[in-house]
Amino acid sequence: MPNLRVTVSYDGSAYHGFQDQGEGIPTIQRSLEQAITQLTGERLRINGAGRTDAGVHAYGQVVNFVTKSSIPVVRWALALNSRLPRDIVVRNAEIVPATFHARFSALGKTYRYTIDNGTYRDVFRRQYAYHIREPLDVAAMASAARLFVGRHDFSAFRSTGSTPTTPIRSVESAMIEVQEPFIHFTVCANGFLYNMVRILAGTLIDIGKHKRSCSDVEMALRTGRREYAGDTAPAHGLCLMHVEYPALAETSARQPPLGDNLNE
Amino acid sequence: MPNLRVTVSYDGSAYHGFQDQGEGIPTIQRSLEQAITQLTGERLRINGAGRTDAGVHAYGQVVNFVTKSSIPVVRWALALNSRLPRDIVVRNAEIVPATFHARFSALGKTYRYTIDNGTYRDVFRRQYAYHIREPLDVAAMASAARLFVGRHDFSAFRSTGSTPTTPIRSVESAMIEVQEPFIHFTVCANGFLYNMVRILAGTLIDIGKHKRSCSDVEMALRTGRREYAGDTAPAHGLCLMHVEYPALAETSARQPPLGDNLNE
Repeated sequence: MPNLRVTVSYDGSAYHGFQDQGEGIPTIQRSLEQAITQLTGERLRINGAGRTDAGVHAYGQVVNFVTKSSIPVVRWALALNSRLPRDIVVRNAEIVPATFHARFSALGKTYRYTIDNGTYRDVFRRQYAYHIREPLDVAAMASAARLFVGRHDFSAFRSTGSTPTTPIRSVESAMIEVQEPFIHFTVCANGFLYNMVRILAGTLIDIGKHKRSCSDVEMALRTGRREYAGDTAPAHGLCLMHVEYPALAETSARQPPLGDNLNE
Repeated sequence: MPNLRVTVSYDGSAYHGFQDQGEGIPTIQRSLEQAITQLTGERLRINGAGRTDAGVHAYGQVVNFVTKSSIPVVRWALALNSRLPRDIVVRNAEIVPATFHARFSALGKTYRYTIDNGTYRDVFRRQYAYHIREPLDVAAMASAARLFVGRHDFSAFRSTGSTPTTPIRSVESAMIEVQEPFIHFTVCANGFLYNMVRILAGTLIDIGKHKRSCSDVEMALRTGRREYAGDTAPAHGLCLMHVEYPALAETSARQPPLGDNLNE
């Protein structure tokens, strides 16, 4: 039975996050599973790479599932899309080794937080960018973002109530890009703590407003104390851009790595 | 009493067009007038430059109205925005001569029709671009678009049921721009017939699919016969980008020019 890896984009505005929360609560997982059931008649569970929160979007979410269906792999994307709501789109489907698991095989993930820093809100991006009217000091934000890079204890940048797990994460890159009037904060790591990207973004926003400085970030990373970090930025500015996996030949389910916080 | 010119962006998805259609029917005009009433207590009518249809968007719609309010002009945009729904944003407000009228003073308008020609629909632009999966011949579309430029009888490119008026319009520019996977058709004219931009776009789409050719456009312009033109492309791909006016010093209400088809 083929193990399918499917890449999905979605507008999370209308959903209570990725993860299934039972009948009557719209989630991405439920919508995808229902489309699969409609297509193949199978009732199955899919594995998602990242459990995006309510209102968070994805450009490159990855899921996998094992199917008995004999539908050729090239047909899957279109067949699912015709059964999915318009705010969820399958962009790719491919057969992967049986050992592949969307979450456990992931090497890292890239998230992007977008701020609309225009004087007036861009109505066409209002659901995908957090509007902040006050001009932000982008250079200060870029300097602070560089401090996130490396292997650190990110305790200061997680929400309470998250599953206990080691707070050590390796951030591979963290950068600020300006595309007037938008400011993008893009961060790639082997895994993220609960609400970590949104708290990193909230901290950068404070720095952009000169309400905090780079030394707050240094203190946050050194002490793990939440008060050195900023607020959790709103969900709608966040997007899961990409999930990194080993090249297919070497793909195998690894032990749950650091990145696999259940509440990520 | 100051005559205010206000520039407005809106996402038309949730509205039955610009023009007021009475209580209980959401329109852009009604939303703007209600915000003004909330702000100043005045019950007044605004003049809009273009009466965009249901589902059509605007980046640079222009309206004007005469107010008794003494609110400084620099405060108007923010004051209205805090009273408007999130899908309507006032971007500018300025005092203009008493003779200025958003519709009658307009010299021309620029509309943009956007096609998402990606294999898979871009979920984040799904309400602002018409998704066509089949690859389109962009060079053929660009050649055909050039034929629209000039003073022509556009009878073939208007919907029946439109207010009788001369079908002669002057198209100043009409071009195709590619921004992968999007194709933008931007057209600037002294005025447009009812559904004209959407029919021009539908015709270009047929040409991009090789279902029609440039000679159909030539025939449509020469004979005025609707069958030489394509279907009316869906509303959600259309956006009113800009309204052109004389420089302020020379602004005056002109006689209703060719561009002022009531059903435009």
